[in-house]
Amino acid sequence: MARPVTLFTGQWADLPLEELAAKVSKWGFDGLELATWGDHFEVRRALTEPGYIQSRWDILNRYNLKCYALGAHLVGQAICDPIDARHKGVVPDYVWDDGEPEGVRKRAAQEMMDTARAASKFGVTQVNGFTGSSIWHQLYSFPPNDFTELERGYEDFARRWNPIIDVFEQEGVKFGLEVHPTEIAYDFVTTRKALDAIGNRPGFGINFDPSHFIPQFLDPAAFIEEFANRIYHVHIKDSKRHLNGRTSILGSHLNFGDPRRGWDFVSPGHGDVDFESIIRSLNRIGYQGPLSIEWEDSGVDREWGAQDALAFVRRTDFTPSTVAFDAAFSR
Amino acid sequence: MARPVTLFTGQWADLPLEELAAKVSKWGFDGLELATWGDHFEVRRALTEPGYIQSRWDILNRYNLKCYALGAHLVGQAICDPIDARHKGVVPDYVWDDGEPEGVRKRAAQEMMDTARAASKFGVTQVNGFTGSSIWHQLYSFPPNDFTELERGYEDFARRWNPIIDVFEQEGVKFGLEVHPTEIAYDFVTTRKALDAIGNRPGFGINFDPSHFIPQFLDPAAFIEEFANRIYHVHIKDSKRHLNGRTSILGSHLNFGDPRRGWDFVSPGHGDVDFESIIRSLNRIGYQGPLSIEWEDSGVDREWGAQDALAFVRRTDFTPSTVAFDAAFSR
Amino acid sequence: MARPVTLFTGQWADLPLEELAAKVSKWGFDGLELATWGDHFEVRRALTEPGYIQSRWDILNRYNLKCYALGAHLVGQAICDPIDARHKGVVPDYVWDDGEPEGVRKRAAQEMMDTARAASKFGVTQVNGFTGSSIWHQLYSFPPNDFTELERGYEDFARRWNPIIDVFEQEGVKFGLEVHPTEIAYDFVTTRKALDAIGNRPGFGINFDPSHFIPQFLDPAAFIEEFANRIYHVHIKDSKRHLNGRTSILGSHLNFGDPRRGWDFVSPGHGDVDFESIIRSLNRIGYQGPLSIEWEDSGVDREWGAQDALAFVRRTDFTPSTVAFDAAFSR
Amino acid sequence: MARPVTLFTGQWADLPLEELAAKVSKWGFDGLELATWGDHFEVRRALTEPGYIQSRWDILNRYNLKCYALGAHLVGQAICDPIDARHKGVVPDYVWDDGEPEGVRKRAAQEMMDTARAASKFGVTQVNGFTGSSIWHQLYSFPPNDFTELERGYEDFARRWNPIIDVFEQEGVKFGLEVHPTEIAYDFVTTRKALDAIGNRPGFGINFDPSHFIPQFLDPAAFIEEFANRIYHVHIKDSKRHLNGRTSILGSHLNFGDPRRGWDFVSPGHGDVDFESIIRSLNRIGYQGPLSIEWEDSGVDREWGAQDALAFVRRTDFTPSTVAFDAAFSR
Amino acid sequence: MARPVTLFTGQWADLPLEELAAKVSKWGFDGLELATWGDHFEVRRALTEPGYIQSRWDILNRYNLKCYALGAHLVGQAICDPIDARHKGVVPDYVWDDGEPEGVRKRAAQEMMDTARAASKFGVTQVNGFTGSSIWHQLYSFPPNDFTELERGYEDFARRWNPIIDVFEQEGVKFGLEVHPTEIAYDFVTTRKALDAIGNRPGFGINFDPSHFIPQFLDPAAFIEEFANRIYHVHIKDSKRHLNGRTSILGSHLNFGDPRRGWDFVSPGHGDVDFESIIRSLNRIGYQGPLSIEWEDSGVDREWGAQDALAFVRRTDFTPSTVAFDAAFSR
Amino acid sequence: MARPVTLFTGQWADLPLEELAAKVSKWGFDGLELATWGDHFEVRRALTEPGYIQSRWDILNRYNLKCYALGAHLVGQAICDPIDARHKGVVPDYVWDDGEPEGVRKRAAQEMMDTARAASKFGVTQVNGFTGSSIWHQLYSFPPNDFTELERGYEDFARRWNPIIDVFEQEGVKFGLEVHPTEIAYDFVTTRKALDAIGNRPGFGINFDPSHFIPQFLDPAAFIEEFANRIYHVHIKDSKRHLNGRTSILGSHLNFGDPRRGWDFVSPGHGDVDFESIIRSLNRIGYQGPLSIEWEDSGVDREWGAQDALAFVRRTDFTPSTVAFDAAFSR
Repeated sequence: MARPVTLFTGQWADLPLEELAAKVSKWGFDGLELATWGDHFEVRRALTEPGYIQSRWDILNRYNLKCYALGAHLVGQAICDPIDARHKGVVPDYVWDDGEPEGVRKRAAQEMMDTARAASKFGVTQVNGFTGSSIWHQLYSFPPNDFTELERGYEDFARRWNPIIDVFEQEGVKFGLEVHPTEIAYDFVTTRKALDAIGNRPGFGINFDPSHFIPQFLDPAAFIEEFANRIYHVHIKDSKRHLNGRTSILGSHLNFGDPRRGWDFVSPGHGDVDFESIIRSLNRIGYQGPLSIEWEDSGVDREWGAQDALAFVRRTDFTPSTVAFDAAFSR
Repeated sequence: MARPVTLFTGQWADLPLEELAAKVSKWGFDGLELATWGDHFEVRRALTEPGYIQSRWDILNRYNLKCYALGAHLVGQAICDPIDARHKGVVPDYVWDDGEPEGVRKRAAQEMMDTARAASKFGVTQVNGFTGSSIWHQLYSFPPNDFTELERGYEDFARRWNPIIDVFEQEGVKFGLEVHPTEIAYDFVTTRKALDAIGNRPGFGINFDPSHFIPQFLDPAAFIEEFANRIYHVHIKDSKRHLNGRTSILGSHLNFGDPRRGWDFVSPGHGDVDFESIIRSLNRIGYQGPLSIEWEDSGVDREWGAQDALAFVRRTDFTPSTVAFDAAFSR
Repeated sequence: MARPVTLFTGQWADLPLEELAAKVSKWGFDGLELATWGDHFEVRRALTEPGYIQSRWDILNRYNLKCYALGAHLVGQAICDPIDARHKGVVPDYVWDDGEPEGVRKRAAQEMMDTARAASKFGVTQVNGFTGSSIWHQLYSFPPNDFTELERGYEDFARRWNPIIDVFEQEGVKFGLEVHPTEIAYDFVTTRKALDAIGNRPGFGINFDPSHFIPQFLDPAAFIEEFANRIYHVHIKDSKRHLNGRTSILGSHLNFGDPRRGWDFVSPGHGDVDFESIIRSLNRIGYQGPLSIEWEDSGVDREWGAQDALAFVRRTDFTPSTVAFDAAFSR
Repeated sequence: MARPVTLFTGQWADLPLEELAAKVSKWGFDGLELATWGDHFEVRRALTEPGYIQSRWDILNRYNLKCYALGAHLVGQAICDPIDARHKGVVPDYVWDDGEPEGVRKRAAQEMMDTARAASKFGVTQVNGFTGSSIWHQLYSFPPNDFTELERGYEDFARRWNPIIDVFEQEGVKFGLEVHPTEIAYDFVTTRKALDAIGNRPGFGINFDPSHFIPQFLDPAAFIEEFANRIYHVHIKDSKRHLNGRTSILGSHLNFGDPRRGWDFVSPGHGDVDFESIIRSLNRIGYQGPLSIEWEDSGVDREWGAQDALAFVRRTDFTPSTVAFDAAFSR
Repeated sequence: MARPVTLFTGQWADLPLEELAAKVSKWGFDGLELATWGDHFEVRRALTEPGYIQSRWDILNRYNLKCYALGAHLVGQAICDPIDARHKGVVPDYVWDDGEPEGVRKRAAQEMMDTARAASKFGVTQVNGFTGSSIWHQLYSFPPNDFTELERGYEDFARRWNPIIDVFEQEGVKFGLEVHPTEIAYDFVTTRKALDAIGNRPGFGINFDPSHFIPQFLDPAAFIEEFANRIYHVHIKDSKRHLNGRTSILGSHLNFGDPRRGWDFVSPGHGDVDFESIIRSLNRIGYQGPLSIEWEDSGVDREWGAQDALAFVRRTDFTPSTVAFDAAFSR
Repeated sequence: MARPVTLFTGQWADLPLEELAAKVSKWGFDGLELATWGDHFEVRRALTEPGYIQSRWDILNRYNLKCYALGAHLVGQAICDPIDARHKGVVPDYVWDDGEPEGVRKRAAQEMMDTARAASKFGVTQVNGFTGSSIWHQLYSFPPNDFTELERGYEDFARRWNPIIDVFEQEGVKFGLEVHPTEIAYDFVTTRKALDAIGNRPGFGINFDPSHFIPQFLDPAAFIEEFANRIYHVHIKDSKRHLNGRTSILGSHLNFGDPRRGWDFVSPGHGDVDFESIIRSLNRIGYQGPLSIEWEDSGVDREWGAQDALAFVRRTDFTPSTVAFDAAFSR
């Protein structure tokens, strides 16, 4: 049986949930991964406003859509980050408040705990998101890093997130970090270190998204096998390298969509991600959850792209084998 | 006639200049590019202490070594950077002083002006170094960058460096930015933008170093041809990618020398830099200056490596053609 | 909105227009790019025979087909070429006449001017074609070329084509050179030189056809961006390299379809052209014109191929984005 | 006209023929290549049991399926092989009998002759299969092979197979060796030597199967052109290399489906076989027979895979050209 | 300090030791790895003939050559192998005796124990060699392997070798298996399984030889890091792939030196082995032993080649770093 | 024993032979391949002027140089070519005379016959050169070639060259065509056709030069094995592709040395030619003649380059093996 295919609503937050649900349902999706911004899933209202949660389900049910996970990327980013002006744009006002960095970080952590509570109340057991990182900006070691100092970045992450994971575990909800540049974990090495920093607690796993591995030259399928027991949720997103000797893999401080960049996000199946290997690895580890399309492509119309992506996933997500090879190859 | 080959002394600052000069001379180098740290070339003493400059020449002359350039990378880094604890380790105490960021940046700018004055007094017309960057840490756009805001990074650079270039031009000295991650310019796009930001003033050019282009997948020889009239000085340094699907090109926040990194610096000729193409391009643009070996390789003995590098450069730096092809291919 | 897809009729000139139009309409094409040979679009009749032009539209309208361009490749070839026996086979009798080379070239130029007039009368503003070249045969410099002499090839082109472009501009029609071996322009360098030779007049642009770039190892999408304001029309045609150490990229003087050649034309989507990058570049430069399939593949049935090509183009020509990336990715 | 697409039943011998035929017919296949094991086509019964052959046709006809070939791989393997315990599992009991090696080989040869007779009686002129090899186990020359001794392997093959081919030729049936590791022929060199060893008799040709060439780095299309007049039947099967520096192309003595292997079989169109080149080569040599899908993929559900494979073949098997290129490209 | 460079004498057994030692010394080698065949090092005489061992040292000392290891490959091959005629050519007469397989295997095991005793008496603590394998011939699983049966191959190896390792450990000598096709271990997977089968006893390790990894597409440097604590000795030998679509990586049952093979052994530095990566990995794991050239190249004169190989190793075996990178890059 | 290394003097014809011989001898060459232009070897004088031939030997002997071949490329080019102004610059005045094309071709043929006579008188049995081609300019088939007409190009070649080869065979001299664009043979296919056209006469063979194969993507070593019995002489010359998506492999009608070209000639060992494979193939076919360096590199000083090339050839031309592999690898 094929996996359900959902759409992550983060890039569609300009549309009211009802309008988006109508489109997505018509296109044939099985469900939505609701972003905790726009009007899609508002954490505070979910916890405080009677009937709010039912109102979300009413919309989903009206369009015959499932929901398996929430996406809480934006507020998560503020939990470990050095705070700057950019965070103001992505967190709720009551998290930003006066913008004092440590205060923002603490309120963001509180909001993430509340997100676990809201998810639980909503009946969803998976929350995906980001963690931020206190050391990301030391990516390139110049002036030379004090590498023993960098270890404290992982400790800072553990100190801030252990209480959050406590709440998740109490609520029966799991957090899935989208391994991604600017987060505490963005590749094999840092994911291992981050998981180790929190003692490999089961409440904290991975929202696997292969698009972030392409510009790093990482093998997404190998990642799945390496961290098999922490793959809690899967994003279907693609990216493409465009290296011609004059474009930098670092991106040149240019916005996505600029053709002078050395890589960019593209609609699934149009980039360098080998999705077939990913499906084979997901089959191998027994992942049964949704495949959630996170759609971003600066060169393609959003609605054309979402439908193209859905068709791509449907034909790529093949059923695993249930019999051993050559079992029948005998007299 | 082959170009002179020098050694940049930045990675040898633990050795007194006299000791280093003795070694380097014995190995067969033509000269030194003196770092402005360690005891190699101290700017303040050069400007204030009678006889100091002569003392440097005495050492150089004793070992029959030339000097074509100073390397002022460390203090340059502090001019545009957001200041953090790492800068304390790389600038003179009188530049760091109380560590208040804007004060550090201003004193660093003053020190760079003084470096131009000291170079002039020393009789050297080239100073190489870094600029720092107020926007480097926004390399990956998440939380999403305000890209119009990023333009101010180039303006900040221009505002801080124009007065410095004024001094360089008055002193008849040129500055060569080593295009490098963490600086205002690190690839084709950003170099063009940085040069434009200061109106392409001749006092500010490039210390070409190909090792920083390899992990970005840039073509070093194409860079030389693109910025031909701003190639003021050349470093010979190499790096090597080691991408196997599990190592990230971003380096995983690991120190140089760690085998889990996706790239590393290596002794010249042992990496991915195509030095022959570089020499051909340097011949084509008419570059006549020194080839200055900046030696870094965590896996090789430093003294073995410096000699290996010198031999490599000697056999690679061939003489350009002086006759047109096929001129003789006629009856 | 997707672009209209037309079929260039040059390879179908053995079929009467009516018969071809019936097929093409049934297959689902939007229109035809009429070749000026066979009975598809006869220039002389169009200018002299009352009702001829209406007869062409009658056929097109009957099958609900549009026409956006004429293809006048064959006669164009004779304008700058050294004339040999092969040209007799491709130009009208009245252009060939006695076959005296300069006479043929002049009559071919006249015919091209007439083609502009006929197009205008027909109500079509685009004529595609070839230019020929007086220097193509000096492609490999042995016996050694006098390269200053080669410059005269571009001057010859300008001298012969400026009067033709005058007529095009008077008639409000544009000429699109199909950049192609044997023409004055066949790659980046020669296209730049040819456009410069005529002062970059707007009446003369490019009929972009990526199939000719593959055997030269040129990047078709980069060509679109380099010559963005001269991309007047687009052919969809593909080719494939087959290099195994024994087949030459030069083709070995073998006919198309011979498996010993180092490359060959193939049905679109079956070769080495990256059409997705081309569509992205066309979106970026704002090209809104037709995608005209020029179908050639010695190994595939023509009618199977035309339909396969149409389906390929329909699924490849995606709609460009109208919103900026991440516009919605905010609270 | 496209070629018929059949399914080789060897990997489905756990299903009764009737049940399999019903499925396959519903999926849209044109026919079956019947394996001589399971209950699909039993040689002894075909020769001895009145009505057996009709019973097979009844099933096929009921589901509107054709049959162009039998697959007698298992018993063929025993003809030249050193016999070990593994052969017991793949040959009929009456061939294995007491298991004495030379006796097994001789009875296997007899069974292959009977297979020719049964095929003839069944009205099918093609039998595919294996030969075994007395020298395969000396693949790697250590302890050093006596290479003159190896020649005797080809002589042994000729000695055992010439009498079999006599029967085939008498019956008007052809044998197609599936060129494959562990057989007397598995690549270009050994196929040439094997065919030479039997004097290139027309009764013995090739069942072309590209999947066995991928782990050897052989070009399947070149093989078709090299042995054009011996390509008697075609299997559509795919395989994929997965080489990351830690997986061996030799397979590590691991079973198919183990991700630590350096290659594996995969569903057609999901691997490294370039089927389009194969179709072009088959067109060129005029092969008109069936394309028989041999389906094996440890990671995909068998029934999903068979249908996916059929759709893949239908869209890949294009019609060859019947007109010369550019025939129409003239006035 | 660079490592000593020795020559493995296995391919020179046609020359008396004295004659070979004279040559090798003149060429500049530091020592010999003595083969236990030819007259180089005869185990039986070493154990039984007074003065024999001294006679070997006398020769070595006369030419100023060291000895760090013995090479006992040939007799080792017979310990686990199914015995066939080829083994007769490579073991001493008293091991072959009547050629009865189990008897040969047992006497070969005895001879290997004696080799440990002889090495100890000779004052050398390393013996390199092969193990043979009872399952190698089941490399390709057809007829389908019973893979649980294959596990017994590793058990057979453990059963036969544990008593041998007992003797080695008593004598203070280590055995180094040259990981190699036809042995119980030939890649990452099988090496891990073989070491596990004997409980990772320290008496049994690896004679690392990268030439056997190239035709398997394995990464030799990664192997060193994976099995760091079992790298007991190092062979310098090279091989080269020559894959053009018609040559098989399996070798086509052709002898070494035949240009139709898909790979072959070549003189070190002339093939696909990346020796610099190997040296870096050896530095990293702290390997201090000899680099022993095993020279085989069918296309090059043996004596020219040995000298060329020595020069290659001398310039490739660079000294590791003793200081941390950037330690000096501070003020 | 290594092969003699000579310098082809064609690119040095601006220097008097005496001056060139002095340099070349000092650099360590073994001999010269004398061009039949400049004052190096004048055919007419050799046949008519008493003492001329001795004067050449006097110079060669004075500098201890051998001569194994003459190079008569320029006049050969005029034998089959359509004649244009470029030929005037490369043939002697008495060959050009009034420049009437057929007259030039006939006189060029006569001169080539005389070259055979002069070589014979000079005591040299090999003349290398070009043939020209009446069909080269139809390389790209547009306007579409009449391919049956192209066959006449080979017939024209045979008709003009058979009488020349008659003279060569009478004189005991062999002609070696340098397979090269613009000649009747420039790749595998055309070489086979040209040799067939003259009935594979032994008087006409090949001057192998790998540099012309690189821009065609041909495998030089495979060419040697394919035409083993016609490899009469060998040039050592290199070329390099520089394809970045904007440079054409066809050269853009740009002169050698222009960095915008897609390929160029470079000093041996600095390009894409794999000389080691070539030496192995030459060893395999038993070629014992000279390796003649034809030096051309627009970016390197000619004299530096000639010496660099000589050193490169000396270290690359290794001695072939005289013993079979593993002959000694037995007890």
